[in-house]
Amino acid sequence: MARPAALRSRIVHGVTRFAKIRGMTGGDVFVQVAAGAARKLDAPPWSGGEVDAELPSMGAALCPARPSKILCVGRNYRAHAAELGKDVPVEPLFFFKPVSALLDPGGVVLLPPESERVEYEGELAVIIGRRARRVAAEDAMRHVFGYTLACDVTARDLQKRDGQWTRAKGFDTFCPLGPSIDTDLDLSAGILELSVNGEVRQHSALSNMVFSVAEIIARGSAVMTLEPGDVLLTGTPEGVGPLNDGDQVEIRCTGLESLAFSVAREPLAT
Amino acid sequence: MARPAALRSRIVHGVTRFAKIRGMTGGDVFVQVAAGAARKLDAPPWSGGEVDAELPSMGAALCPARPSKILCVGRNYRAHAAELGKDVPVEPLFFFKPVSALLDPGGVVLLPPESERVEYEGELAVIIGRRARRVAAEDAMRHVFGYTLACDVTARDLQKRDGQWTRAKGFDTFCPLGPSIDTDLDLSAGILELSVNGEVRQHSALSNMVFSVAEIIARGSAVMTLEPGDVLLTGTPEGVGPLNDGDQVEIRCTGLESLAFSVAREPLAT
Repeated sequence: MARPAALRSRIVHGVTRFAKIRGMTGGDVFVQVAAGAARKLDAPPWSGGEVDAELPSMGAALCPARPSKILCVGRNYRAHAAELGKDVPVEPLFFFKPVSALLDPGGVVLLPPESERVEYEGELAVIIGRRARRVAAEDAMRHVFGYTLACDVTARDLQKRDGQWTRAKGFDTFCPLGPSIDTDLDLSAGILELSVNGEVRQHSALSNMVFSVAEIIARGSAVMTLEPGDVLLTGTPEGVGPLNDGDQVEIRCTGLESLAFSVAREPLAT
Repeated sequence: MARPAALRSRIVHGVTRFAKIRGMTGGDVFVQVAAGAARKLDAPPWSGGEVDAELPSMGAALCPARPSKILCVGRNYRAHAAELGKDVPVEPLFFFKPVSALLDPGGVVLLPPESERVEYEGELAVIIGRRARRVAAEDAMRHVFGYTLACDVTARDLQKRDGQWTRAKGFDTFCPLGPSIDTDLDLSAGILELSVNGEVRQHSALSNMVFSVAEIIARGSAVMTLEPGDVLLTGTPEGVGPLNDGDQVEIRCTGLESLAFSVAREPLAT
């Protein structure tokens, strides 16, 4: 998009972290983050957005993705499949979370009255950067824009009862995501961790995934076109457990900003 | 939105059919359809769009919805559950189709090489007009914008094999939808029909639904916020069967425009 040459030159090359914040005029804006400063983009970064203004301060991070779909993979770590008493799938076990489940970083996951057992599942999230349709695994990584963190919050009782996981995975607030997107991540070295009230509950190397990020993109895009901005959740390692009213959760991964959220009971409708 | 008073006065009151077409400058525009003429809207009709131009001709109808999600109900007609050898669910059996599966009216459903048995499922589609979150069934109909037709194309072999229906229901082109949205429909009198190559295969009263439209909105919105423009697929009656290369399919319902599509094998990647 058109912008003054002076501003165009202020793009910080080599900086690979992006976020979304509330703009001063009310709308949400994407920003490039460097040395604590935020540079406003004129479009989402995966749509070729470039810097068109410097911002005086960063502001609170919002959910940094605006996907047309959230495609998730179940049982993608061997030890997690085992703790559920299940085999590792032969094909990636795909399911969807609705975009209405997305929650801003620092937000509150609401425990719905329909479930007596809501669990955390810390996960690496992939943001698609280029449209993907039946891409081969060896070409798949060219379709990645970047990485962030997510929690695939799951009503375990409803998951077991319903057959389809739509309700269990789909309540509002059941997908905390963010806080920022990094375009570089060493998948072979990354360690994913989730803690509840400061106590580590999940800890695994990303390299323990059954289906790699490239394989997920290849198999997923053999079914459906993945669009720029779409989100893939890559599965959770072992150690899943319940979320309770008042819990403070943090998800960490080597090389990424940490994602925090808290937990509360959904207030009864008035 | 701002528009000349002369045009504002040309809104045809009492006309309740809306469609989407390719505009002359390339973008898609929503139109109000009356007496064969199309009147361009300045926004989607469920977002308060009003007429801002008369168009010389109607043009080919595009998929008239732009949903953030497509929430579907399985086994919502008793006789269809029976033909699958299944019980009618106690709760609506919800699943998602991805928006990447949407197909314009008159389009071509592509049979993917991954399946040996792709089937049609003719359905009534509901377009949400007002945000809905935990609405009661008795208030639910106020959240409906209108009705159109859809086919919940399903790879039956993958549906049986996968557990989750994501692949089976999610291939590109697996959701023909349209051609136009009518805001008025008598749900107690409507007859839904699907024909393949001119032969009627499905025929049922909409009143045979297990969960009514109001009940689907109430139970669905107890899980996730339904946004204006979101699409609900209300389930298919008995008579499902295979789609083959070259088939011509038509879905009809009393009071709605008919939806047609054809079927072809997906071309092998080059």
